[in-house]
Amino acid sequence: MQVTTFGEIMLRLTVPGNQKFVQTDWFHANYGGAEANVAVSLALLGDQATFITKLPNNILGDTVIQKLNEFGVDTNRIVRGGKRLGLYFLQPGAGVRSSKVIYDRNDSAFAASKDGDYHWDELLDGTDYFYISGITPALSEELQATLLSAVKFCQDHSIKVIYDANFRGKLWTADEANTFNSKILPFVDICLVNDEDLENAFGLKAFDNRNHQAIHEKDSFKQSLEELTTNYPNIKLVASILRNIYSAQKSDWQAILLTDHKFYESSTYNMQVVPEVAAGDAFGAAIVHGVLNNFKPQFQVDYAIAAATLKLTIPGDFNLSRDSEIRDAMTR
Amino acid sequence: MQVTTFGEIMLRLTVPGNQKFVQTDWFHANYGGAEANVAVSLALLGDQATFITKLPNNILGDTVIQKLNEFGVDTNRIVRGGKRLGLYFLQPGAGVRSSKVIYDRNDSAFAASKDGDYHWDELLDGTDYFYISGITPALSEELQATLLSAVKFCQDHSIKVIYDANFRGKLWTADEANTFNSKILPFVDICLVNDEDLENAFGLKAFDNRNHQAIHEKDSFKQSLEELTTNYPNIKLVASILRNIYSAQKSDWQAILLTDHKFYESSTYNMQVVPEVAAGDAFGAAIVHGVLNNFKPQFQVDYAIAAATLKLTIPGDFNLSRDSEIRDAMTR
Amino acid sequence: MQVTTFGEIMLRLTVPGNQKFVQTDWFHANYGGAEANVAVSLALLGDQATFITKLPNNILGDTVIQKLNEFGVDTNRIVRGGKRLGLYFLQPGAGVRSSKVIYDRNDSAFAASKDGDYHWDELLDGTDYFYISGITPALSEELQATLLSAVKFCQDHSIKVIYDANFRGKLWTADEANTFNSKILPFVDICLVNDEDLENAFGLKAFDNRNHQAIHEKDSFKQSLEELTTNYPNIKLVASILRNIYSAQKSDWQAILLTDHKFYESSTYNMQVVPEVAAGDAFGAAIVHGVLNNFKPQFQVDYAIAAATLKLTIPGDFNLSRDSEIRDAMTR
Amino acid sequence: MQVTTFGEIMLRLTVPGNQKFVQTDWFHANYGGAEANVAVSLALLGDQATFITKLPNNILGDTVIQKLNEFGVDTNRIVRGGKRLGLYFLQPGAGVRSSKVIYDRNDSAFAASKDGDYHWDELLDGTDYFYISGITPALSEELQATLLSAVKFCQDHSIKVIYDANFRGKLWTADEANTFNSKILPFVDICLVNDEDLENAFGLKAFDNRNHQAIHEKDSFKQSLEELTTNYPNIKLVASILRNIYSAQKSDWQAILLTDHKFYESSTYNMQVVPEVAAGDAFGAAIVHGVLNNFKPQFQVDYAIAAATLKLTIPGDFNLSRDSEIRDAMTR
Amino acid sequence: MQVTTFGEIMLRLTVPGNQKFVQTDWFHANYGGAEANVAVSLALLGDQATFITKLPNNILGDTVIQKLNEFGVDTNRIVRGGKRLGLYFLQPGAGVRSSKVIYDRNDSAFAASKDGDYHWDELLDGTDYFYISGITPALSEELQATLLSAVKFCQDHSIKVIYDANFRGKLWTADEANTFNSKILPFVDICLVNDEDLENAFGLKAFDNRNHQAIHEKDSFKQSLEELTTNYPNIKLVASILRNIYSAQKSDWQAILLTDHKFYESSTYNMQVVPEVAAGDAFGAAIVHGVLNNFKPQFQVDYAIAAATLKLTIPGDFNLSRDSEIRDAMTR
Amino acid sequence: MQVTTFGEIMLRLTVPGNQKFVQTDWFHANYGGAEANVAVSLALLGDQATFITKLPNNILGDTVIQKLNEFGVDTNRIVRGGKRLGLYFLQPGAGVRSSKVIYDRNDSAFAASKDGDYHWDELLDGTDYFYISGITPALSEELQATLLSAVKFCQDHSIKVIYDANFRGKLWTADEANTFNSKILPFVDICLVNDEDLENAFGLKAFDNRNHQAIHEKDSFKQSLEELTTNYPNIKLVASILRNIYSAQKSDWQAILLTDHKFYESSTYNMQVVPEVAAGDAFGAAIVHGVLNNFKPQFQVDYAIAAATLKLTIPGDFNLSRDSEIRDAMTR
Ligand SMILES: [Ca+2]
Ligand SMILES: [Ca+2]
Ligand SMILES: [Ca+2]
Ligand SMILES: [Ca+2]
Ligand SMILES: [Ca+2]
Ligand SMILES: [Ca+2]
Ligand SMILES: [Ca+2]
Ligand SMILES: [Ca+2]
Ligand SMILES: [Ca+2]
Ligand SMILES: [Ca+2]
Ligand SMILES: [Ca+2]
Ligand SMILES: [Ca+2]
Ligand code: NI
Ligand code: NI
Ligand code: NI
Ligand code: NI
Ligand code: NI
Ligand code: NI
Ligand code: NI
Ligand code: NI
Ligand code: NI
Ligand code: NI
Ligand code: NI
Ligand code: NI
Ligand code: NI
Ligand code: NI
Ligand code: NI
Ligand code: NI
Ligand code: NI
Ligand code: NI
Repeated sequence: MQVTTFGEIMLRLTVPGNQKFVQTDWFHANYGGAEANVAVSLALLGDQATFITKLPNNILGDTVIQKLNEFGVDTNRIVRGGKRLGLYFLQPGAGVRSSKVIYDRNDSAFAASKDGDYHWDELLDGTDYFYISGITPALSEELQATLLSAVKFCQDHSIKVIYDANFRGKLWTADEANTFNSKILPFVDICLVNDEDLENAFGLKAFDNRNHQAIHEKDSFKQSLEELTTNYPNIKLVASILRNIYSAQKSDWQAILLTDHKFYESSTYNMQVVPEVAAGDAFGAAIVHGVLNNFKPQFQVDYAIAAATLKLTIPGDFNLSRDSEIRDAMTR
Repeated sequence: MQVTTFGEIMLRLTVPGNQKFVQTDWFHANYGGAEANVAVSLALLGDQATFITKLPNNILGDTVIQKLNEFGVDTNRIVRGGKRLGLYFLQPGAGVRSSKVIYDRNDSAFAASKDGDYHWDELLDGTDYFYISGITPALSEELQATLLSAVKFCQDHSIKVIYDANFRGKLWTADEANTFNSKILPFVDICLVNDEDLENAFGLKAFDNRNHQAIHEKDSFKQSLEELTTNYPNIKLVASILRNIYSAQKSDWQAILLTDHKFYESSTYNMQVVPEVAAGDAFGAAIVHGVLNNFKPQFQVDYAIAAATLKLTIPGDFNLSRDSEIRDAMTR
Repeated sequence: MQVTTFGEIMLRLTVPGNQKFVQTDWFHANYGGAEANVAVSLALLGDQATFITKLPNNILGDTVIQKLNEFGVDTNRIVRGGKRLGLYFLQPGAGVRSSKVIYDRNDSAFAASKDGDYHWDELLDGTDYFYISGITPALSEELQATLLSAVKFCQDHSIKVIYDANFRGKLWTADEANTFNSKILPFVDICLVNDEDLENAFGLKAFDNRNHQAIHEKDSFKQSLEELTTNYPNIKLVASILRNIYSAQKSDWQAILLTDHKFYESSTYNMQVVPEVAAGDAFGAAIVHGVLNNFKPQFQVDYAIAAATLKLTIPGDFNLSRDSEIRDAMTR
Repeated sequence: MQVTTFGEIMLRLTVPGNQKFVQTDWFHANYGGAEANVAVSLALLGDQATFITKLPNNILGDTVIQKLNEFGVDTNRIVRGGKRLGLYFLQPGAGVRSSKVIYDRNDSAFAASKDGDYHWDELLDGTDYFYISGITPALSEELQATLLSAVKFCQDHSIKVIYDANFRGKLWTADEANTFNSKILPFVDICLVNDEDLENAFGLKAFDNRNHQAIHEKDSFKQSLEELTTNYPNIKLVASILRNIYSAQKSDWQAILLTDHKFYESSTYNMQVVPEVAAGDAFGAAIVHGVLNNFKPQFQVDYAIAAATLKLTIPGDFNLSRDSEIRDAMTR
Repeated sequence: MQVTTFGEIMLRLTVPGNQKFVQTDWFHANYGGAEANVAVSLALLGDQATFITKLPNNILGDTVIQKLNEFGVDTNRIVRGGKRLGLYFLQPGAGVRSSKVIYDRNDSAFAASKDGDYHWDELLDGTDYFYISGITPALSEELQATLLSAVKFCQDHSIKVIYDANFRGKLWTADEANTFNSKILPFVDICLVNDEDLENAFGLKAFDNRNHQAIHEKDSFKQSLEELTTNYPNIKLVASILRNIYSAQKSDWQAILLTDHKFYESSTYNMQVVPEVAAGDAFGAAIVHGVLNNFKPQFQVDYAIAAATLKLTIPGDFNLSRDSEIRDAMTR
Repeated sequence: MQVTTFGEIMLRLTVPGNQKFVQTDWFHANYGGAEANVAVSLALLGDQATFITKLPNNILGDTVIQKLNEFGVDTNRIVRGGKRLGLYFLQPGAGVRSSKVIYDRNDSAFAASKDGDYHWDELLDGTDYFYISGITPALSEELQATLLSAVKFCQDHSIKVIYDANFRGKLWTADEANTFNSKILPFVDICLVNDEDLENAFGLKAFDNRNHQAIHEKDSFKQSLEELTTNYPNIKLVASILRNIYSAQKSDWQAILLTDHKFYESSTYNMQVVPEVAAGDAFGAAIVHGVLNNFKPQFQVDYAIAAATLKLTIPGDFNLSRDSEIRDAMTR
């Protein structure tokens, strides 16, 4: 079984040690992106994972490839060319202080890539699963067209499509997301849609006025997930992370999984300090790992929420956890 | 509207990373002092701020000036001369471990400065507000005399005086503070006096035996603030931070403001880890910023407590927050 | 009064900053071991402390000795020789992530040392107390024999023996520990046995199925301590740390002390983040310091739990606290 | 006397410690650009210096302004707007290894700025000298037009123009540079043109086949400088750095100055390791400082080469040297 | 064309920043070993490279594999098992101060590995070149036997053998080396033997009493190389680095290559500071890269010495240079 | 044989990494002083060394003592009290840039100490050698008196006196030094006087107009040393370091020793980069070590210059070299 993920990977430049931009002489550098993160997770879990993107033909592009190779991701299908590597600056928040992000990705090799850059028959040759997220269509109309042609190719070649809603309010509006998603959802086999994405990405009423209290709103959330699978019966499995966020220091995390008309709920994790990112990608990868390895649904959702919370303890965007570590975290 | 602050700025040498003095090969260096911190805050909030002090005529003195220039403080009226820059060593506390401070400021350029060093007619020419704190009179009798001649000058030239009680038990006794404060309070227009300073600095009974529980003691605290404004009707506005301190990791923070016989209370912030210092100075600066910009009292006190808690997330002594960031913190 | 401790000291190589092994280019290095830690604590508290071990005749061995000298431990009786310094790699845990240890100590100078390496008549000449722990007999049968010959020497020369149970499940089984401990306990004057060690090391039923809830199980724990002193009336004092561990971020700590058929309990400390190690050694050292200085039992147990919790705030294995700092922590 | 400089300032992200891109997790960050560097030098030397550029309206733009304020540069005339801050990545060379630069400045706020962004009557109001370099016209034709309209304004308002040839082969060709320079040179009062720039920027034969041996080629170089001042009699002063570069570790540096038909030569400095950049900007600033302060030509050229070599000892792009330090370096 | 290298890879723990062991709290960690270094070089140069070793079944073993994957080395044939990863501590020298190494590799997984651990028919299936060095036979007699059985397998299957003499005086004597080398040389196709290895490893008189002056002794050195190829006519190519070492800061480096009875000499590089290691491995890899790609002998030796001197500028054991960078260094 | 050294030890705060004061957020901290450095050297060489000074009764004072204990110096006779620890800030030079020192030692515990603080009969009880330097008398007249009373005590009790001239032009004038030295030299048994100290400290003509070329001026230097021993026949041994200083990067170092009317010269070391300090103290300690261990004069001077140049490779003020390392450096 072989999984291919497709999306952008960027350089993240992070202000260290609670400082503000004006205080720092140093940026911590790491490379990440939702779909690349998923490929790394799968490779470390022992699955065969290929990552496809477009990277500039310079040393930074080479560096990204080496970082992915380190973890066993197949990088041989990456397209090279374009002007620059997308990047963003992050000044993490602390206490009452919000985090600040300065995106600098507009004309990156990937964001400016064209449908013609991707020859899906070659790129997807031999793959079994195709993993994409709602970040890519938010980057350009060209990439929307590319994604649609890719999922059509998948439908024609019995490649399963996994779609993580991953709504990004800084890249497009909820309306734009709805419009595109209604075109792609008919092709999706497995759907990942975390708490606040459900309303924004799919236009389904998830919550009843209580912001950041998704676990408390689990009933209405489930109802909408059922509606989703009724509308798109091609979707055989949906999984979501729900969070009650009390403060930057305190939140509860629970996952639910819907398959074959039945819901499975993980236990709830009480999180205290959450400095790191990309838990959703770790979750998505773990769900896919479960699919590839025929996990029972209850085990699958328990495994995936453990992978997500484990990611929050690891610096960088990649979930460097191995299978034994996720199973260990499930028992704590 | 132009604000002038006057006081000492020192080099702080901090032991990093939870270490003890004997473990470290490195000290983190930053420059700060209550009144300089206020000037930096105001300059970053867009107000015109001048800082006056006396600095030695060496590279460390030059460095202090550059650090203040960075944030837009007017440093042209700083007096140069004297023997050395005041400094102190800080080994921050952790858990049950107290922080340790070794002051090394005795014969600093400022602490040893003389009344004759300061020509108030030139130094305060064109200013509208004069900001001082209870640290300066604690340094020497000479500086007490200097302060009194300065506030008299202010009274004669319609410059408003802002006084932060800022009691420092390592520098003088409560009795000495009382004696001096009874001389200066008749000249004060705006008074800042945080929880534990009220009894020590002004000899007014603030609490009823419950240490570090100022919010629980709010009623008696308010009563004493009323007494203060009755005794000194020249004081048109008083603002205070009150804290319930449960442990090094847990405290509640609330601010109150008294003006025109009416109290205004901010919402209460639950703070979890408070590694950084100088919240009081950020609070004072925000109160002054409100005065300069005609904030309504309720907004002013809400704004100021947000500025104070925001400071606690920022390394160093300066509150590097801009207006938009304080307003953002008010909504979290 | 002179105390001699005997055991292994190793190099600890720690992955910094929440990283995983594969992420780091740096290891933090420090030297520590239960019995060396005790010697350092005692020397810093003003007692005369000698540490005995066997160290390789290379620069790392020299370095260990200098590190101990720094704190005033007498290192003149350390035996030199053997192949290498024992070491271990530590990747600390975080949140749901367990810590990982890779021990690399098998053929260290100490672990491979022989009974003939230690001439107890010379090594213990002039000492009043001999401090050992259950780590040493877990390393080899040869070291078991060495320890037994040492405590016999103590018995013959009126040297008091202090034994910290310190069960290490990675080094031997509970059965093996029981067998050895039944041989050494008849020689012990003061016994330290922290919560989970009691069942493992001595085979005494301590808890009633509630793991990591030792304070809640205090009654059954006390009963077993009484049984211990009944079985071995030579044991004049037993002290234990009990912990309720709720999560990696939250635990309660309390100490109890049994002497002359009476129990003394310390107040309970609520600990929030516990990144550092070797609290048990700090506790043991503080108990011994109390014995040497005739502390009253209630003060002794309060002092020792303060020393233990203080250690948790200090990087490295050594408790760098001085007497005044422990007394300060007792009041917080 | 007031000097205004105009050009781009960028974020430099440098790989630390001899590493290659793929090895580093950190980038050192500093801000610099030829004309900004000159403004900082002048402000630190006590002259009045204003820097004009266009910066994006985000935190990175704010940070640049604070960094300039720190050294006393007037930043009040900086234009805000545009998409992003220009940046570049630098992997410094070592031994036989070349340095690698990845420019990422194409659509920066400054590079994409329009003639209409700069209102020269307001921006140059009150200035005496206008300092520009050959980097700006290499960025766009729009900026060429802007520069020409600016120098015409200067001619009309008796503002002296200083032009540093600063040829950048990665930004335009020698032919393009020649074409533009022949348009701007008629407006120039003071010209800076370092060794290899002379041929590239002005199309004047400087060397006789001996690359990187400018001091050995001093005669032909001088001849061309005379030709330059003959062709453009408006140029009253020309100054140049000449270098014999033997290896990355070894070079000789000498400066010459031509004014009133007479050449002045500095002594020659033997440089051993030259890790840092922006010596040419330090040189240009020192020449301007000499003009503003009526230095005698011989002293001026000696002072300027000392400033240049001093810069090479200082990390970052700014020459943080003060007057006394340059004079001290002249005597070593 | 596929190359397999076989040998030990260890963890190197280096004292940073000119410190001594007793001064440092940190060790820099990197992984390297002669034959692994060669595999990394080849993979980065675009050749197919497989590395075979035996690694312990723990996280450190996994980490080594990931570090090799990062650069594209095939790690799928690595044998797992054994007790520990070999490691060594390095305190680099400076000026008159020698470097200090503490080896801690005795019972590593590789050093203790047995002939039966390596099934050469599977491990070498499909390979064209087999690269080994004189370090491996110095580790144990068992590994000597293993190597001899491997090269016999190569002879039988037309796999070319490359042997780097790499004499290590701390691991065995010159006599022991001679004895083993006389057994393996009849199987060798390409031989690498750097200056001081020639006498020690092969017992051929290379120098005439002038230590560390190999370039000055080039004639006698060449004579012995001719003798080597006369004695072992199976050796079709020999390459050597010769160095005149004047001081820690100053040395000359030249390479010679003997093939088909003809010598080719590179130009000489004057090296100034040489902090880094593993130049010989970079040289060997570049020679092999030349063989795989049919470089002409003169170009091959020029290319290889450039690769070696380039390695000296790169931290760690791996030569992270790509082909374009080596060609660039050849022109400097 | 027991040696006692007496003088000040200070905290040095060093700007790291070629930065200037205004650039750094960090100071590197280490503790050192000429006479303390000598005590550390001797202790590491295996001699019995006691250091006497006066230190403040705070954590910084305690820290100094622990740092000395680490290397085996006897610190039990250190006097405690006074106001503060002396300190100084160092911004090291680079290339043409001078180093900058800001002393902040005026009212340190030692500098302000009184004759009555030191009870020489107790402090020197049991010592054989008393080591002092010309820094101490430069600090105050009180300390001059103290030293004279100490050396008189030595004369009366057959304790040999070693005096290092160590002229410090920032602390007193050459005239003042001459006056004091003429009083103390009659008590001196062994005199250390490095190149430029000879004229300044003792008023003896050492050089003939060639500054920083002491080796070239060896003849006149020797003549003056003979004059010194003629004037003070009590001086049985004089040793000096002579340096030709060509630039910050290049110098030659040679030592000479005069005893029993005969000169002994070491070989000359060509030094390339000399970042570190306190070579003179390492030299003095090595001379004393030679005296204590009856080295032959030629070996003694060779050993001492090796110790001095070795020190220059070691960060901090202490020469952490052991005997075997000095002997190793002698052969390089
Ligand atoms: Ca800074
Ligand atoms: Ca997501
Ligand atoms: Ca402060
Ligand atoms: Ca305050
Ligand atoms: Ca324990
Ligand atoms: Ca890395
Ligand atoms: Ca620049
Ligand atoms: Ca230039
Ligand atoms: Ca240290
Ligand atoms: Ca190696
Ligand atoms: Ca080699
Ligand atoms: Ca000296
Ligand atoms: Ni920096
Ligand atoms: Ni991410
Ligand atoms: Ni990170
Ligand atoms: Ni250090
Ligand atoms: Ni340290
Ligand atoms: Ni702090
Ligand atoms: Ni890393
Ligand atoms: Ni590194
Ligand atoms: Ni590295
Ligand atoms: Ni430990
Ligand atoms: Ni990192
Ligand atoms: Ni640079
Ligand atoms: Ni440390
Ligand atoms: Ni190295
Ligand atoms: Ni900086
Ligand atoms: Ni900092
Ligand atoms: Ni800072
Ligand atoms: Ni020193």
